[in-house]
Amino acid sequence: MKRVVLASYARGNPRPSDFRVEDVPVPEAGEREILLRTLWIAVDPLIRFSLDENLLSGATRMEPGSLMVGPTVSQVVASNHPEYAPGDFVEGRSGWAEYNVLAPDEADYRGPPRKLDPSLAPVSTALGALGGPGQTAYEGIVNVGRVKAGETVVISAAGGAVGSIAGQIAKVLGARAVGIAGGEAKCRALLDLGFDAAVDYKAPDFADRLKTALPEGADVYLDNVGGDVTLAVLPLLKRGARMPMCGFIAYYGMGMEGPGPDRLPGFYRQIMAKGLEIRGFAGIFAGQKGLNDIAGWMKEGRLRFPEAIVEGIEAAPEAFSSVFSGHDHVGKLLVRIAPEA
Amino acid sequence: MKRVVLASYARGNPRPSDFRVEDVPVPEAGEREILLRTLWIAVDPLIRFSLDENLLSGATRMEPGSLMVGPTVSQVVASNHPEYAPGDFVEGRSGWAEYNVLAPDEADYRGPPRKLDPSLAPVSTALGALGGPGQTAYEGIVNVGRVKAGETVVISAAGGAVGSIAGQIAKVLGARAVGIAGGEAKCRALLDLGFDAAVDYKAPDFADRLKTALPEGADVYLDNVGGDVTLAVLPLLKRGARMPMCGFIAYYGMGMEGPGPDRLPGFYRQIMAKGLEIRGFAGIFAGQKGLNDIAGWMKEGRLRFPEAIVEGIEAAPEAFSSVFSGHDHVGKLLVRIAPEA
Repeated sequence: MKRVVLASYARGNPRPSDFRVEDVPVPEAGEREILLRTLWIAVDPLIRFSLDENLLSGATRMEPGSLMVGPTVSQVVASNHPEYAPGDFVEGRSGWAEYNVLAPDEADYRGPPRKLDPSLAPVSTALGALGGPGQTAYEGIVNVGRVKAGETVVISAAGGAVGSIAGQIAKVLGARAVGIAGGEAKCRALLDLGFDAAVDYKAPDFADRLKTALPEGADVYLDNVGGDVTLAVLPLLKRGARMPMCGFIAYYGMGMEGPGPDRLPGFYRQIMAKGLEIRGFAGIFAGQKGLNDIAGWMKEGRLRFPEAIVEGIEAAPEAFSSVFSGHDHVGKLLVRIAPEA
Repeated sequence: MKRVVLASYARGNPRPSDFRVEDVPVPEAGEREILLRTLWIAVDPLIRFSLDENLLSGATRMEPGSLMVGPTVSQVVASNHPEYAPGDFVEGRSGWAEYNVLAPDEADYRGPPRKLDPSLAPVSTALGALGGPGQTAYEGIVNVGRVKAGETVVISAAGGAVGSIAGQIAKVLGARAVGIAGGEAKCRALLDLGFDAAVDYKAPDFADRLKTALPEGADVYLDNVGGDVTLAVLPLLKRGARMPMCGFIAYYGMGMEGPGPDRLPGFYRQIMAKGLEIRGFAGIFAGQKGLNDIAGWMKEGRLRFPEAIVEGIEAAPEAFSSVFSGHDHVGKLLVRIAPEA
């Protein structure tokens, strides 16, 4: 079978050459272990934190030669564990490999692999609308952002898995949704999803376009990016605006400090001048309630979740790197490793 | 009479030479105007924002030659306005001058001068515990910080007017209060006020001392400073900590950007890694409820409010500058212009 390992420490944004595809024997399941065939890999940007010394708490460092690990959907091939049977579909964290052996009893705080019912929804949605990204979007818009009908919400990385769901949830709640994404194609796709406006951050007149899209400013800014995009949004936030923060991809390649000048003084000035409320959060807290609401909205046709699919494990390094350098997909970027049996 | 005007635009922290004391005639009160004799001037650091082009919203720019304006307590000398009588004590914003003429009908959003009852409390407290600083401390600890019994609160600029009250309010609520201040004398004064610990940010081993004072981290960080002090506190905050922010004196001399490196990436990283909640606020929202609680606690002897007094209007430029360069006073720094009649 094939698997992807880290070849070198990543500096700055990951590049395909930071990874290596290896041929290794298919592992065997030991006592109370299960053998999984990987179906889908989500190239989650948070994996970036495992690649260098600037770990977020909870992240496990990957060394050169380490198997890449992240969110996957798999199917049980062989099981020595009473709770899993061959043919079961599961979502969890496992290696970027065609097959993985897991010991459900030794799960970390995230819990053992979660069994999926393929009759309820396609199993790939467990990595998107009905998984971490859906929960994050829900938590950001509903619980942290406390978005109300008639308010205006602006969303960075709106073409991503979290952002594309978040904007649609804002619309379900009766708010106006403005997305920020890279490129005209992505912006058009956001309008198709129901966003009221979409602004291309790659346009030379981005700041002016953003101002035009937010003539009265914004009540909530769901930030997944940081960097120049956020510095352009801040002056447009209303007094007392809420800023739920679920990521900062512009800074993932940096440690605690980036190249000068120091922009923290201006950040403080905006927080104070506007009485902003900023909160970092992880989607896990939205839990089952969030997933149930999203599933209901999808069933009613009020929420669509685009998936962008690339094929084969050898495409994983390129797909992962493209998350940081910018790509043209909207929605969740998935790597299909094998068809469902 | 004497008055203080701005001599030059301030760059960086204000210096006494940025101001000039002038001799001018005492003005006369016109129709519906009042003539005030200044008793007390509060050298409020927020005045800094009126001195250059980096205005906070609500600040009025002062040009070279402009009379300095800020919070004062005065006594009415002559009145052509039916709501004010000679002898009345009032708190409001007026010039750094021995006498001022005000038109109460033309007040800005802050409202007309507020009449004070000298039998309830010394009138100078209207600039401290029973004024803006008291309201700010109350809002930060009670409403934004939501401090609960058994929690640990850390406070920057703890020797200042806001910080010294905030720590005592945290104690009233049953929390542990740790203050950060400059110099051993100030730290001892904080312990006298009831703080559980006080840490000198000028000590070469400040970060280690702070860690020792916060063995289990902090639940709430009331920040009035920013800069290096805050960068030392952030790693010690607990998951989900609240960070009410009422000022950022370390950055007042800067515009939107300071000298590199850029510390915003690390700030984002801490917000996300810990799920921090940051909120900028102004004390005005604590309103009369906050002032009533503070007055009650003072009456019960549970809250003391030190004042540091310098004498005479010619001392105002030096006193104002010392707020930024660091001084040895604890509590509110006031300039006494004249005795109460």
